[in-house]
Amino acid sequence: MPYVNIKVTREGTAPGATSTTPGQKAALIKGVSDLLFEVLGKPHDSTFVVIDEVEMESWGVGGVTVPEYRRRSAGGGEAAV
Amino acid sequence: MPYVNIKVTREGTAPGATSTTPGQKAALIKGVSDLLFEVLGKPHDSTFVVIDEVEMESWGVGGVTVPEYRRRSAGGGEAAV
Amino acid sequence: MPYVNIKVTREGTAPGATSTTPGQKAALIKGVSDLLFEVLGKPHDSTFVVIDEVEMESWGVGGVTVPEYRRRSAGGGEAAV
Amino acid sequence: MPYVNIKVTREGTAPGATSTTPGQKAALIKGVSDLLFEVLGKPHDSTFVVIDEVEMESWGVGGVTVPEYRRRSAGGGEAAV
Amino acid sequence: MPYVNIKVTREGTAPGATSTTPGQKAALIKGVSDLLFEVLGKPHDSTFVVIDEVEMESWGVGGVTVPEYRRRSAGGGEAAV
Amino acid sequence: MPYVNIKVTREGTAPGATSTTPGQKAALIKGVSDLLFEVLGKPHDSTFVVIDEVEMESWGVGGVTVPEYRRRSAGGGEAAV
Repeated sequence: MPYVNIKVTREGTAPGATSTTPGQKAALIKGVSDLLFEVLGKPHDSTFVVIDEVEMESWGVGGVTVPEYRRRSAGGGEAAV
Repeated sequence: MPYVNIKVTREGTAPGATSTTPGQKAALIKGVSDLLFEVLGKPHDSTFVVIDEVEMESWGVGGVTVPEYRRRSAGGGEAAV
Repeated sequence: MPYVNIKVTREGTAPGATSTTPGQKAALIKGVSDLLFEVLGKPHDSTFVVIDEVEMESWGVGGVTVPEYRRRSAGGGEAAV
Repeated sequence: MPYVNIKVTREGTAPGATSTTPGQKAALIKGVSDLLFEVLGKPHDSTFVVIDEVEMESWGVGGVTVPEYRRRSAGGGEAAV
Repeated sequence: MPYVNIKVTREGTAPGATSTTPGQKAALIKGVSDLLFEVLGKPHDSTFVVIDEVEMESWGVGGVTVPEYRRRSAGGGEAAV
Repeated sequence: MPYVNIKVTREGTAPGATSTTPGQKAALIKGVSDLLFEVLGKPHDSTFVVIDEVEMESWGVGGVTVPEYRRRSAGGGEAAV
């Protein structure tokens, strides 16, 4: 009966995408459900997974929004944060 | 001072609707607030209710997305999951 | 497939209780599940309910903790907040 | 490593705005991150802040939706709830 | 910068355990972090995972608490829900 | 009517403390409520704040639990993560 909530910034990480793709969501759902079965023996049918995509300007880290954080980090290899 | 968060898939369950209707949201808010008053004596004014509608492809159960889960269950009477 | 999270302060509202009783929890779970079936047609088996009890000093309202808020409201009839 | 989730109704509080503005979001993120550093010594880089805006008809208080609550309170000075 | 919250019932699934073990928690954290890197390219350092264990009588499914649900399901192979 | 949830690891950051102290909780509640008033004009009475303390072994970052993460970072100045 696990409940898993995954929050990510809404942005494309696949070519041409501007948000998480249906295939990526399906992969996250399968991966998390498999993990809970493997580690805790939870049956797949009893695991709920909810994926929330959050606008980048609504997500903060380092005291600033994600876009601002990345601008400051540019050149420092942190663009994928 | 209760806080209640209700998450449901975004889909229509009333005729012609493609999402939870304003009337259904109002009924959920009233029902939950009444319940907390009846069971725990919490005054209505001190109960917050937040309803989140989640895209069906962002909700997983059985290791797959809800649409895929329903396709597999078709004929098995689980369409309302 | 609804998921409902109910957060309340940890305190007794039944005689002699210092927290939500098992009977009150069962009543909340039944009430919420019934509500989702009545309003949205969601089958009981597909509704998860999670109740969190939060220490009173970890819950804030009015800019202060709940115990402090109640002290200030004493005499004002807001003790049940 | 704090994680802070701020939920507000989606509405404009700045002139001409119909939702929380980017500047307001940035101010919330900075303010919360500063607070966690000042009170608990948490480094800014380790604090995540996620802001959710919730449609007003999906938020309930007093047993009714926010718009209905405000209509009832009109004249009572509670419009800013 | 993903944030993942995993909620499970507090109970032992390893021999002799009465709750999720430290090793199981570590496996969940590693598995989820690996998954977010593989599917979305998220660096491990930017993924937060929070595991909540919920008392069984505070978790509801089928309109009843988990212990009651399992009693009713006994013999039906649903004990692992 | 904002709702703010603050999650931090359960640990002492004040001398002799092993968890967030009542004074620190009160400071967080006041600070967040003040912030929402200043930025969005939300009245203090309509802001709820809930603070959750999470066991360190239940919080993951970098693919490992917080204690393990700090052991690896020791000497690198990241102990306050």
